[in-house]
Amino acid sequence: MEELAELRRSIDNIDAALIHLLAERFKNTKNVGKLKARAGMPPSDPAREKRQIDRLRALAVEADLDPAFAEKFLEFILAEVIQHHKNLAANGS
Amino acid sequence: MEELAELRRSIDNIDAALIHLLAERFKNTKNVGKLKARAGMPPSDPAREKRQIDRLRALAVEADLDPAFAEKFLEFILAEVIQHHKNLAANGS
Repeated sequence: MEELAELRRSIDNIDAALIHLLAERFKNTKNVGKLKARAGMPPSDPAREKRQIDRLRALAVEADLDPAFAEKFLEFILAEVIQHHKNLAANGS
Repeated sequence: MEELAELRRSIDNIDAALIHLLAERFKNTKNVGKLKARAGMPPSDPAREKRQIDRLRALAVEADLDPAFAEKFLEFILAEVIQHHKNLAANGS
């Protein structure tokens, strides 16, 4: 059970890092959203998303992570980002 | 547009870090899964999950991330982890 507790402490450390990186990622995407709203650009950009998916799948393979999971993960994040962009565009800003 | 390109480069750097941390997280949860399967423990642990959700929501607030998103994120990851644990338990190991 000591082994389980130690693994869980590592998982908790990684989760704290993930939360902080996600906060930083959304700071950047909020700025992207503002730029896009100002320029009248659409909230989503399928060509950019395709490049991101391909890149993250390749990084996942290198890191020994299931590439299908990496793609699902990016889609999960992008759904949130696009919602933020739509809110920004709707609110003017 | 140079500003957009620079923001996207930061997002790409953060995404690479996220992918590598997720790979490390799943390495740890796979070891948790093996321990649990060996000990005949159930794949999910609601009391542990409750503590994780509370902790990540608090970290999210500190980091200026929507706590509801942090909770959704953890649930997204845990669904994958529990699937891995079930597969492990089914395969014996």
